[in-house]
Amino acid sequence: MDLEKLFKPKSIAVVGISKKNPLSPGRIILLKNVFEMDVKVFGIYPGGGEIEGIRLYNRLDELPEIPDLLVIALEPNATLEYVQDCAELGIPSSVIIGGGFAEIGGKGKKRQEKLQKIAFENDIALLGPNCLGVYAPPRVDTIFLPTERITRPKKGSVALISQSGGVLVDMFFEKFHERNIGVSTAVSIGNRAVVDEVMLLEYFSQVDQETSNIAFYLEGFKEGKSRDFLQLAKESEDTVIVYYGGKTREGKVATQSHTASLAGNYNIIYNALRQHLIIQPHSETELLTSLKVYDVLSQRRNPFGNNVVTYGNVAIISVSGGHAVLASDMLKKYGLNAVRFSPQEKRHLKSLVNPTAKEIASFNNPIDLTGSVLDTDIEDVIRYLSDVERIECIIVLLLPYPPNISFQIGRRIANIVTSKNKPVVCFIPYVSKYSLIIESLELANIPVFHSIKETVQAVSALKHRTRINNLKKGNLSWE
Amino acid sequence: MDLEKLFKPKSIAVVGISKKNPLSPGRIILLKNVFEMDVKVFGIYPGGGEIEGIRLYNRLDELPEIPDLLVIALEPNATLEYVQDCAELGIPSSVIIGGGFAEIGGKGKKRQEKLQKIAFENDIALLGPNCLGVYAPPRVDTIFLPTERITRPKKGSVALISQSGGVLVDMFFEKFHERNIGVSTAVSIGNRAVVDEVMLLEYFSQVDQETSNIAFYLEGFKEGKSRDFLQLAKESEDTVIVYYGGKTREGKVATQSHTASLAGNYNIIYNALRQHLIIQPHSETELLTSLKVYDVLSQRRNPFGNNVVTYGNVAIISVSGGHAVLASDMLKKYGLNAVRFSPQEKRHLKSLVNPTAKEIASFNNPIDLTGSVLDTDIEDVIRYLSDVERIECIIVLLLPYPPNISFQIGRRIANIVTSKNKPVVCFIPYVSKYSLIIESLELANIPVFHSIKETVQAVSALKHRTRINNLKKGNLSWE
Repeated sequence: MDLEKLFKPKSIAVVGISKKNPLSPGRIILLKNVFEMDVKVFGIYPGGGEIEGIRLYNRLDELPEIPDLLVIALEPNATLEYVQDCAELGIPSSVIIGGGFAEIGGKGKKRQEKLQKIAFENDIALLGPNCLGVYAPPRVDTIFLPTERITRPKKGSVALISQSGGVLVDMFFEKFHERNIGVSTAVSIGNRAVVDEVMLLEYFSQVDQETSNIAFYLEGFKEGKSRDFLQLAKESEDTVIVYYGGKTREGKVATQSHTASLAGNYNIIYNALRQHLIIQPHSETELLTSLKVYDVLSQRRNPFGNNVVTYGNVAIISVSGGHAVLASDMLKKYGLNAVRFSPQEKRHLKSLVNPTAKEIASFNNPIDLTGSVLDTDIEDVIRYLSDVERIECIIVLLLPYPPNISFQIGRRIANIVTSKNKPVVCFIPYVSKYSLIIESLELANIPVFHSIKETVQAVSALKHRTRINNLKKGNLSWE
Repeated sequence: MDLEKLFKPKSIAVVGISKKNPLSPGRIILLKNVFEMDVKVFGIYPGGGEIEGIRLYNRLDELPEIPDLLVIALEPNATLEYVQDCAELGIPSSVIIGGGFAEIGGKGKKRQEKLQKIAFENDIALLGPNCLGVYAPPRVDTIFLPTERITRPKKGSVALISQSGGVLVDMFFEKFHERNIGVSTAVSIGNRAVVDEVMLLEYFSQVDQETSNIAFYLEGFKEGKSRDFLQLAKESEDTVIVYYGGKTREGKVATQSHTASLAGNYNIIYNALRQHLIIQPHSETELLTSLKVYDVLSQRRNPFGNNVVTYGNVAIISVSGGHAVLASDMLKKYGLNAVRFSPQEKRHLKSLVNPTAKEIASFNNPIDLTGSVLDTDIEDVIRYLSDVERIECIIVLLLPYPPNISFQIGRRIANIVTSKNKPVVCFIPYVSKYSLIIESLELANIPVFHSIKETVQAVSALKHRTRINNLKKGNLSWE
């Protein structure tokens, strides 16, 4: 089944527009595609007329061309009729917004079977029902939530596939924006009557050129599809990540009323995914941290060159002793080790630092440059550590509170990282007045995080990805 | 030792002002107290003169009055001389900013012993050395970081005591501000040569009327002081929280260069604190979530009245099925249970909801009102659940993305919570355009969190506090 028309349509039609209710899903979808997206849009309204200056067509067969995609925002029986029209007119893809299908059981299940029959017999790439559909910038956006209510993430390398529309727009869109992570295409799969996780994994890993990382929120696998999914994931050159909802008995009860998924035994699922080299974050934070790191690594200007984090050997630079302690406390849990400095290295480090800080700073690992730090101290220490080969990654805990840290510090660090290619991950507090520092690092694709834990998690994610890449290439076997 | 003059001085003197360097700690402290705080301030500068229009006195004994507090921002030997002056002039308290004492070992240790001798013999409440000192609004602020670089939290019920200045201004100040948590007094204890965790716990739990919650960041207990600390904590009516740095071997190594603390065996410490009813958050997030809940509960207008969360029986209301699933997944881990609704209760809930949502919503627990939700649905469901006695707390996962949720929703929920007194904890995404909704809830002291995990943690913190209160009162024994 060809998904290209679903995600990169040249023209779309929308049906289910209310003339009375400006908040009706069909009307919101029509207007956001006309005003905000880069696609030819036709509105369908029995009786015709116009809305907000946009001409409405009476019927699908009156359109001047066959659209690539039909978005249907109607009650279930009318939905079925329009899907039948797609078959007759040769419309190759459709997004079904409305519910009233398998998720309500009984007659809803029968309706969904009809939907599947028409779609599979006529090769229609049908997404949904009971979903938000597709956000595929710059072309199409079928999310019926008003754009001003949600947050659109920037364009990037991550394809998002979610069994929950709420999770898609909140946990992904909103938090991606907050963390500056980029999305290639986002898909809300709803009941996945036709287009399912296997087809999407195949499309994004084998067809779509914009995607290098594929992240799923799933509440269970579609029946009979898990084996294909696992095999595809293992063979994929992209990073495949699954965040799973319904891990516990309590969560499973909730999925049954949500998407009628049979969540299965999570332990079995966890092990199967792990053996197929699928990354499974343990928390929302870890999910977002990993995706941020992987998105950065997929950029054209990868700041770390071919340097990778294999064993998790790190050096920590801090300007706050407490932050250094708390970061050190987390290393082991995340599979990382603090490199030991030789007495000679410590002496050298000390010689790099300004006279006031020198007396009170600590040159073990973690290095604490204290509140008496200058920009040049941080610069010189990072430059020196970048040349120490056994250090694979430098963690910089950069609080810009000490009076002598300037607004140039981000650019200064970026210059060194760009020339040395040693992986560097930064912690900077999430405060708008420091966005100049944060931006100067992120423009150079150096990932910045806003808690100690996320910073440590990010280095762990770098190590994890090296490991998975090696396992996929057969350079490494399971221990 | 009386700490009142240290935290509530009527007048202070500052020594260690540089006329050349506007970023010298003494000069920053002088100016921020003159310009920003509500205390009489004297600057000391050998040779006198003035700076930024402020008269500088040649010596301490030339001041028109004996100040309550002397802030010393000088190198260690000069520091010792000024502490001797405090003794001779009868200055009752002092903050020592500079380092070069026990934390550098050797001669530093000897200097610290001298400091201690003078202070104890003359009953001087001496804070530090090697610290940021005190932030006690509205009176005094000895933090030498420029105010515009850091974030000051609002006034509230939490006393903060930190062994790391960096942790104080970043993890506490900055994140308190982000989460709208209030501080009574903040103390950076540095080497705690004289004023230590035991004196501070005693002062904040027995003397200070503004404090109801006392939070410590510690990297170890002062030698010989842990027993007194534990006993005081157990007897305290305030909530006592300890967040510990240096839990692991790696972290302990870091504490030794930071504050020369002997972190001890964390397992032993953990159990001792636990037995003395001290709350020990497992992560920074859990620490902040707990403090937010406890700060809210300490407000004059406690929105929950005398209602408490004893068994952790909750109801969850969501407008996103995925969020409901993820929250349900976390319940058990945090010691909470989803109440089961009877068929009659489910029917009643269904009857409250608008016709569109009714067909697709789910009325199990979690309740998923879907994207077709109206304000009145949320209102009516919360009102109904508030009267179901076996529900101890309602979790509202409120994504304001659905088109019909209005900006009044926060006020509507607040009105019900205020009249019903049933504990309600809300999740709302951290997006500035929704701050009107967030503020209307927080003005009514209903705690709002910005991730599912924090929301669930908050309910767990409510349960934990009920349990600790009962244990302290002897209403409950250890299971």
